[in-house]
Amino acid sequence: RKYLGKPEFERESQEKKSLVGVACGMVVTLAGGDIVYIEATKMPGKGSLILTGQLGEVMKESAQAALSYIRANAEKLGVQPDFYDKYDIHIHVPEGAVPKEGPSAGITMFVALVSVLKGVPVNKDVAMTGEITLRGRVLPVGGIKEKVLGAYRANIRTIILPKANEIDIEDIPEGVRNNIRFYFIENVEEALNIALENEHREST
Amino acid sequence: RKYLGKPEFERESQEKKSLVGVACGMVVTLAGGDIVYIEATKMPGKGSLILTGQLGEVMKESAQAALSYIRANAEKLGVQPDFYDKYDIHIHVPEGAVPKEGPSAGITMFVALVSVLKGVPVNKDVAMTGEITLRGRVLPVGGIKEKVLGAYRANIRTIILPKANEIDIEDIPEGVRNNIRFYFIENVEEALNIALENEHREST
Amino acid sequence: RKYLGKPEFERESQEKKSLVGVACGMVVTLAGGDIVYIEATKMPGKGSLILTGQLGEVMKESAQAALSYIRANAEKLGVQPDFYDKYDIHIHVPEGAVPKEGPSAGITMFVALVSVLKGVPVNKDVAMTGEITLRGRVLPVGGIKEKVLGAYRANIRTIILPKANEIDIEDIPEGVRNNIRFYFIENVEEALNIALENEHREST
Amino acid sequence: RKYLGKPEFERESQEKKSLVGVACGMVVTLAGGDIVYIEATKMPGKGSLILTGQLGEVMKESAQAALSYIRANAEKLGVQPDFYDKYDIHIHVPEGAVPKEGPSAGITMFVALVSVLKGVPVNKDVAMTGEITLRGRVLPVGGIKEKVLGAYRANIRTIILPKANEIDIEDIPEGVRNNIRFYFIENVEEALNIALENEHREST
Amino acid sequence: RKYLGKPEFERESQEKKSLVGVACGMVVTLAGGDIVYIEATKMPGKGSLILTGQLGEVMKESAQAALSYIRANAEKLGVQPDFYDKYDIHIHVPEGAVPKEGPSAGITMFVALVSVLKGVPVNKDVAMTGEITLRGRVLPVGGIKEKVLGAYRANIRTIILPKANEIDIEDIPEGVRNNIRFYFIENVEEALNIALENEHREST
Amino acid sequence: RKYLGKPEFERESQEKKSLVGVACGMVVTLAGGDIVYIEATKMPGKGSLILTGQLGEVMKESAQAALSYIRANAEKLGVQPDFYDKYDIHIHVPEGAVPKEGPSAGITMFVALVSVLKGVPVNKDVAMTGEITLRGRVLPVGGIKEKVLGAYRANIRTIILPKANEIDIEDIPEGVRNNIRFYFIENVEEALNIALENEHREST
Ligand SMILES: [Ca+2]
Ligand SMILES: [Ca+2]
Ligand SMILES: [Ca+2]
Ligand SMILES: [Ca+2]
Ligand SMILES: [Ca+2]
Ligand SMILES: [Ca+2]
Ligand SMILES: [Ca+2]
Ligand SMILES: [Ca+2]
Ligand SMILES: [Ca+2]
Ligand SMILES: [Ca+2]
Ligand SMILES: [Ca+2]
Ligand SMILES: [Ca+2]
Repeated sequence: RKYLGKPEFERESQEKKSLVGVACGMVVTLAGGDIVYIEATKMPGKGSLILTGQLGEVMKESAQAALSYIRANAEKLGVQPDFYDKYDIHIHVPEGAVPKEGPSAGITMFVALVSVLKGVPVNKDVAMTGEITLRGRVLPVGGIKEKVLGAYRANIRTIILPKANEIDIEDIPEGVRNNIRFYFIENVEEALNIALENEHREST
Repeated sequence: RKYLGKPEFERESQEKKSLVGVACGMVVTLAGGDIVYIEATKMPGKGSLILTGQLGEVMKESAQAALSYIRANAEKLGVQPDFYDKYDIHIHVPEGAVPKEGPSAGITMFVALVSVLKGVPVNKDVAMTGEITLRGRVLPVGGIKEKVLGAYRANIRTIILPKANEIDIEDIPEGVRNNIRFYFIENVEEALNIALENEHREST
Repeated sequence: RKYLGKPEFERESQEKKSLVGVACGMVVTLAGGDIVYIEATKMPGKGSLILTGQLGEVMKESAQAALSYIRANAEKLGVQPDFYDKYDIHIHVPEGAVPKEGPSAGITMFVALVSVLKGVPVNKDVAMTGEITLRGRVLPVGGIKEKVLGAYRANIRTIILPKANEIDIEDIPEGVRNNIRFYFIENVEEALNIALENEHREST
Repeated sequence: RKYLGKPEFERESQEKKSLVGVACGMVVTLAGGDIVYIEATKMPGKGSLILTGQLGEVMKESAQAALSYIRANAEKLGVQPDFYDKYDIHIHVPEGAVPKEGPSAGITMFVALVSVLKGVPVNKDVAMTGEITLRGRVLPVGGIKEKVLGAYRANIRTIILPKANEIDIEDIPEGVRNNIRFYFIENVEEALNIALENEHREST
Repeated sequence: RKYLGKPEFERESQEKKSLVGVACGMVVTLAGGDIVYIEATKMPGKGSLILTGQLGEVMKESAQAALSYIRANAEKLGVQPDFYDKYDIHIHVPEGAVPKEGPSAGITMFVALVSVLKGVPVNKDVAMTGEITLRGRVLPVGGIKEKVLGAYRANIRTIILPKANEIDIEDIPEGVRNNIRFYFIENVEEALNIALENEHREST
Repeated sequence: RKYLGKPEFERESQEKKSLVGVACGMVVTLAGGDIVYIEATKMPGKGSLILTGQLGEVMKESAQAALSYIRANAEKLGVQPDFYDKYDIHIHVPEGAVPKEGPSAGITMFVALVSVLKGVPVNKDVAMTGEITLRGRVLPVGGIKEKVLGAYRANIRTIILPKANEIDIEDIPEGVRNNIRFYFIENVEEALNIALENEHREST
């Protein structure tokens, strides 16, 4: 058996530039919290969704919910309504060899998708976590303390969290907590206003 | 392995507004009864049905039965007859990480679907449970007492049940029972009259 | 894990009206014989067959045989020859949560399908059982005594059986046997003459 | 769990009429040899092959080889060259609940398919067995003695066998052997001349 | 369970005629080496590849590599460039019931495919073995001594081998070795010059 | 069971010519490091991706990421923007029988794909390894020392590595290290400038 690469255990570091289609999420690993970059791309196609990065079933379903929300609300979001007719969408979560599962990358995938569909970069200094529902609600997730510490270590100073996780902020050491700008949201579209650059209800 | 979120065990609370495509069902968990929101959306497409929320096979089949009933009876329901040609349908049952199984969300899925296809909101103060058959009959389900108590805790005061479950109402404590308006139905279309706002046989 | 409904063990009772697309079959369960309603519907589509009700592989194959027989003999049956181009077909066997297997619902599925394709109701007082082959032969099945007793309990007084099961009628108590009108058939089309209302070789 | 029928262990008997699309094969079961009817039908479609009767993988592959041979040699066989564009093909091997495996129904499926594609009946007094290859060779099979005895019991008096099985005829009791007309073939098209009624190189 | 045929253990014998679409490979079995005929056919279709003969995953992948090489180099090979648009391709390796695995039938499948696509027969006195890569290289395989002896027993006197297997010829008894004409190739197209009749860079 | 070939354990040797669609990667096996040729081809088609060579799931996903990157950045790369409409793509990693897994062939697949889509050969004296992300970042991989030694043994003197693996070069014996020209890259497009012949930002 030939093996082409093994996973290493170094922490991810912040992107140098704000990029289109790349949003920063937060995960919990055996080594504590870390940031993770969700990458979305669009290409001429016929309406396929490709999901890679060894994503578990729950995580794949949250990508589908994010995409369906956008397709059902395209006009409101300033996205071309029939985009899914003309494009294939690909979402990838590096590193390729590490299995990932869970619903809390939902809002991150949503932001990366809207970013690539509108061609607007995501602010590189923002990290986020939160489960998305089909109607756009943001549900709470776990591991908030580890995730926030992980993002802080990666120099992130702006963090978007579900409103229902506001109470979990108390567990974070004061020194860290006071140095972060927190946004607590209940609906996914609030994340766009915070995370997309130059985007405050702009439509194309 | 990177994990993005864990399920928590808090009870669901009632929606603040009546919404299009969102119907309130009732489930039984290890922690007793609870309400659950079934979300349905439609988007420009070619006739696909996407089902997410870690639904088991029986639950997925009940979504298919609800959709086929609507497609076969579109005109009678006031839904555009060839809608399935032009749209993709997505049904999601949060929370994304919790496995769900069973046939009793059938009428709930049916109501959410008709709501989104007609653009008519579902009354937020109504919860329902019941198995649906392909010809539109409503079959009885279990756990009625736990489900009704769970809905009551979430401030629901109007509940739709299968006619054949009428006898199970006796097990509910009198104080709760007397504060709820019950509807017992034998055919799914009766649920529309009760649950859809401003809808009493309106056609588009 | 959230559970939405559990199967109950009450016997099925006879439909109140003769319905289009609904044919009455007979099954054997741990509790003895019972009737079961096979539901068929058609909707605008492109030629898909949807089968629900937790059907096992043999049962699904018998649905395919019934449908292929109709597609290959459409004109003779008075069914529009290219119907499968324009429609999707859905067959459901309630209750949704109960697994079902075996070939003996073949003629029942056939009758339900012809009924819905011609828009002609199935007589509500008739129950049937029998395996169907692709060329339209009716093969014998087992559990005849239990099935007939179960149908009798549900007030059914007309029963269609495979010719080769005629000998099994002797096991049925005389009081029941004499109160039932039996038809023994060798070819599926004979079942149409008996079970479809107002149908004696009518063509559309 | 509801069960709709069980397999019985009666021997198959000869068809009363020569039929289009129905060819008689021979099998070996725990109860010795028996005949089995392979049924083929065609219906307006887009080029699908449906295989039912609980066929194992090897048996399904032999159906594909038979069909590909016909598609590649349509003109020579007098079959419409683009038939697969316009039709769906369904092959069924009753009884539905009995699992079947093995390559020796290959020539039987071939004959049933050519019969239905040309609308020419298969002689009801002929049984056959033999593996088919993609180029039309007929390969030997096992259980010849049991198969021939089984066919003889069902009143079959004409039997087609692979040429390489000629030697196995010696094991058959003289009384039976002398009462059967044997044909030993090396190429599948020889089977058409023997088994199809009124067919000796006729083309449409 | 009904069984229709069992594999026998007789050796394959040489084809009597050179045929279009049939190329002779070599295998190793428990009984030593043997020849095996790879059959390829083409039929009007839409670009499907059907593979039968109980082929393992590696063997199926080598069929795909052979076909892709031809599709990518159609013009150079004298094959109609858009043939895959108009045809379905079927490759079968008898006997149907015997499982087969391994990469060494690659060049044999390639030759059979080019033969059927050009309508040119393969010389019946040639046997070959060798793994094919997507760019047309021929890689060495194992069991050379057994394979050559098996081909020799079947009266084959011309054998094509990978260049890197030339050294394995020394193990073959001198009497056999001297009676065989060996060709050692590094690129698949060399096999065409040797094995296709009347084919030395002919184009259609 | 018939077996057509077994894997051997000889090291791969360098290609003699620079080829279109063939890029040289590096792997680690039980026998140490080795080079491996990734082959890519394109053929008239409708937008399918075929992956062969017994590739594991992570390796298949890295091929998808490479292809999506090219489809999303076609114009910038000088590749025809709608190429995926008109072509099928096939990537093969010999030897066919050896299972392969891991993300580190990502940049190698990318280079092979761009090479075949532009018709530009890959320099035969260059080997590479590195994981690719959807946005084109190059991530570090493991086994650098073994891989470099394996390439050196195959006479490779130019090696492309991820920037984050620069530190691993220290483990390589000085004699080998000083004889190799290393390139350390952070973005996949840098690999094109190094590995494609006559290619320094040329567009078609
Ligand atoms: Ca890392
Ligand atoms: Ca996250
Ligand atoms: Ca909850
Ligand atoms: Ca419910
Ligand atoms: Ca019941
Ligand atoms: Ca029945
Ligand atoms: Ca029988
Ligand atoms: Ca047979
Ligand atoms: Ca043999
Ligand atoms: Ca071979
Ligand atoms: Ca090697
Ligand atoms: Ca590599």
